Amino acid sequence: MTSKIIVREKADQAVETLRDHGVDLWITFARETNEVAEPMLPLIAGEEFIWPGMVLVSQSGRKIVICELHDAETFREIGVHEVYPYENSLKSVFCEAMQEIGPDEIVLNYSKGNNTADGLSHGLYLQLSEYLDAISFEGSLRSGEAVVSEIRGKKTSAELTRIQTAADYALEIFEEMRIAWDPGWTERDVARYMHQQIDNRDLATAWDRELCPVVTAGVDGGSGHTKPGEQTVPEGEVLRIDFGVEYQDYVSDMQRLYYHPETAEGEIPDGLRSAFQDVRDAIAAGAEVLKPGVQGYTVDEAARSVITSRGWPEYQHGLGHQVGRNVHDGGTYLGPRWERYGDSPLKEVHEGQVFTLELGIDTEWGHLAQEEMVQVTAGGNTYITDPQEELYLLPK
Amino acid sequence: MTSKIIVREKADQAVETLRDHGVDLWITFARETNEVAEPMLPLIAGEEFIWPGMVLVSQSGRKIVICELHDAETFREIGVHEVYPYENSLKSVFCEAMQEIGPDEIVLNYSKGNNTADGLSHGLYLQLSEYLDAISFEGSLRSGEAVVSEIRGKKTSAELTRIQTAADYALEIFEEMRIAWDPGWTERDVARYMHQQIDNRDLATAWDRELCPVVTAGVDGGSGHTKPGEQTVPEGEVLRIDFGVEYQDYVSDMQRLYYHPETAEGEIPDGLRSAFQDVRDAIAAGAEVLKPGVQGYTVDEAARSVITSRGWPEYQHGLGHQVGRNVHDGGTYLGPRWERYGDSPLKEVHEGQVFTLELGIDTEWGHLAQEEMVQVTAGGNTYITDPQEELYLLPK
Repeated sequence: MTSKIIVREKADQAVETLRDHGVDLWITFARETNEVAEPMLPLIAGEEFIWPGMVLVSQSGRKIVICELHDAETFREIGVHEVYPYENSLKSVFCEAMQEIGPDEIVLNYSKGNNTADGLSHGLYLQLSEYLDAISFEGSLRSGEAVVSEIRGKKTSAELTRIQTAADYALEIFEEMRIAWDPGWTERDVARYMHQQIDNRDLATAWDRELCPVVTAGVDGGSGHTKPGEQTVPEGEVLRIDFGVEYQDYVSDMQRLYYHPETAEGEIPDGLRSAFQDVRDAIAAGAEVLKPGVQGYTVDEAARSVITSRGWPEYQHGLGHQVGRNVHDGGTYLGPRWERYGDSPLKEVHEGQVFTLELGIDTEWGHLAQEEMVQVTAGGNTYITDPQEELYLLPK
Repeated sequence: MTSKIIVREKADQAVETLRDHGVDLWITFARETNEVAEPMLPLIAGEEFIWPGMVLVSQSGRKIVICELHDAETFREIGVHEVYPYENSLKSVFCEAMQEIGPDEIVLNYSKGNNTADGLSHGLYLQLSEYLDAISFEGSLRSGEAVVSEIRGKKTSAELTRIQTAADYALEIFEEMRIAWDPGWTERDVARYMHQQIDNRDLATAWDRELCPVVTAGVDGGSGHTKPGEQTVPEGEVLRIDFGVEYQDYVSDMQRLYYHPETAEGEIPDGLRSAFQDVRDAIAAGAEVLKPGVQGYTVDEAARSVITSRGWPEYQHGLGHQVGRNVHDGGTYLGPRWERYGDSPLKEVHEGQVFTLELGIDTEWGHLAQEEMVQVTAGGNTYITDPQEELYLLPK
C-alpha cells in the first residue's frame, strides 16, 4: 500500500524518535479487518496484516515484523524489517523477540485525545497484557502518544515531495478553473470542472468528493462546508474555493479567492482590497510566530488578534491543522484553547510538520477566506507554494 | 450511510438481545477519523460521528445518541434515537444519561478474539473509565462480545433482503459469463467481463476488486487466492470462480464450477462427475447438521469427514464463515479447532445468521471448489439461492 521508500524513512525516523524520548521499544499490534484499521500501519509496516501481527521498533535499531507464515512474503518484499513468521502462536514468537530486545520502557498506540495515535483496540491491549504477564515483564508500559505523533507529524523527504506535488497539482487546477470560468457557471459547475481536471490527471480529491471543492459564490453562497449549489457569482462579488488533491496517498489543502469584476478594467473596490489584506495579514502574523518549540495556540492567537483588532468577528475554528496522509493529520493543532480541542492546542510545533493556515471573514462582497500550506523548518517555516497575494480576477 | 430501516431494526434487536443476556446497558463509544472506524456504528448509529459520541442502548428500551451539537441534526433525521447533544462536555451529558438509566451491568465493544466486536480503542476505554469513576459507578463493566456478535450475526428482515439481492445478482452475472464465454478467454478476460457486468448494474465487488472474482482455469490455474492470470481453460478441464457482489452495503460470496467439454456432446468424465459429487456431498453433510445451538466446529467436522472418508486430503481452512456487511462477518466460525482460529469454532450457531459453506479438492481436471450460502432457521437452515447440483457446461 505505501511505497517502500516511505516505510524505510519512517522506520529510521522512528528509531531516532525513540532515542530522543528514551523509549526502548515501540509496539504496533494490529489484525485484519475491513472495518478497523491501525493508522500507523501504512507508515511503519507498509502493508496490512491478514492475521494478527506486530511491528516492533527498538531504540537499538531493530525493526521487526511478527506475522503469520502466509503474510511473511509480503513483508520480506518491502525489505525494511526483520520478518519473524509464526505458524500457530504469535505469542511464542513475540516472547522470543522480547527476550532478544529486553526492553524496560515500552510504548503502545493509545491516546485519550489523539485519534491517529489511538489505533490499538482495547481487546488487543488485553491480549498484549497477557503476553507480557506470561514473560513476567516488569518494565513500564505506557501511551506512545508523544512518540507516535512525532513520527506521523515530522514529514520525511519522500513525504514532503508527495505533499508538494499534491499542492502543485492543486494550484494548476485552480488556475485552469480560472481560465475556463464562465459567468454562467454555478458553484456546481465549478466543482464539476475541477473534478474533471482531477480525473484527467488520475488524481483523487483530498477529502470526500462531494465536499471537495467547497465552492461559495458571492454573498449568497454563504461560508460553510456545504455542497456546491446552484448559485452563480454576481458581478462585484467573490468566488471562494476550498480544495485539495491526493497524490500517492498524500494530500494538499488550500483556499483561493477570485473576484468577478463589474467592469472590463477589472477594478477591485478599495474596501474589498483592504478586507483581503486583513485576511492576508492575519495569516502572515500566524506564519510569523510558527516555529519549532512554540505551542499551537500561540500561533492561532497571533492571527486571531489581527482579525479582531481590525474590527472583524473571530473565526469559529482554529487557524491551522496538520496535513499529510490525511487532511487532518493529528497531533499539534494551531487552535484556541477551547474545550472541544482538548489539549491539542497545547502541543508543541516540531520541525518537519506541515500545517495549513486558514481563516475567513464575511464581507459585503462574499466570504473572504484564504488557506496556505507551510512546512516547519529549523528556524521558522516556509510556504509550500507561493501564497495568494492578491485577488485573482475572473475573466470578463 | 446505512438506511434508517436497518438502524431501526438493529436497535430493536439490540434491546431484545440485552434482555436475553441480562445486560442493562450497551455503550458504543467512537470518534471521527478517516482511519479508525467502529464496526458497530453503521448498524446501530447509521452515521459517523464528527466529534466524539456515544450510542447507549438499554434493556429498558432506551436508544440514546450523545453527540456534539453540530452532529445532532444528522441523528435526529435518522429518527431512531433520543438525541442528547453536548456543546462542550460529552462527559456531563453522559453522566446525566447514566443517572436516568441507572445501570448495574454495562457492556462495551471489546474482544480479544473477535475483531468486529473490538471497535473500542484503548484510549477511549480509558476515557470512559474516567467518566465512570467521576460518577462512582460501582456496577460491572465487561466485554460485550457475546451481545455484539449476536446483534451483528442475526440478520434482520431488511438485511436478509439485501443479502438475497446481492446473491441473486451474483448468480445472474455467473450465468451471463457462462453464455458469453469464449475458449480464448484467459482468467483475466473472465474477471474483466464480470467486472463489466458489476459496473453496468452500479454494483460493487464484495471484496477487493483485484481478487473478486478469483478465477482458476484448469489444472495449471492452481487453487489459491491469486489474481486472475493469462491461463485459458484447456478442453477437458474445469473453470472455477469465487465471486461476490455488494448491494446496498451487504454482500454475497459463492463459488461456481464449469466444465470445458472435449466434444460437442459435452460429456463429463465419470471420475470428474464422481469427484464433483464428493464436494457436493461434503457441503450437504455440513448443511445437514447446521442449526441453532450447535458449535461451529461440529459443522466443519461433518463436511471434513466426508472429504477424508472419500480419500481426498483435508481442505486447509474452515468450512464456513458468516456473511453480512462484510464477506467475513465476525463471530461464530464453522472451522476446525486449530489454534489460529482461536475460540471462534467453539461459538454456537444462532437463528438468523448467514453462512457460506465452502470447500475444494485438487483433481486431474483442475481445482473443484464449491461455495453456497445458507441462512440459519429455527430448526436448521435454508439455501439463500439454489445450490449448484451439477457442473455447468461451457459453450462448445
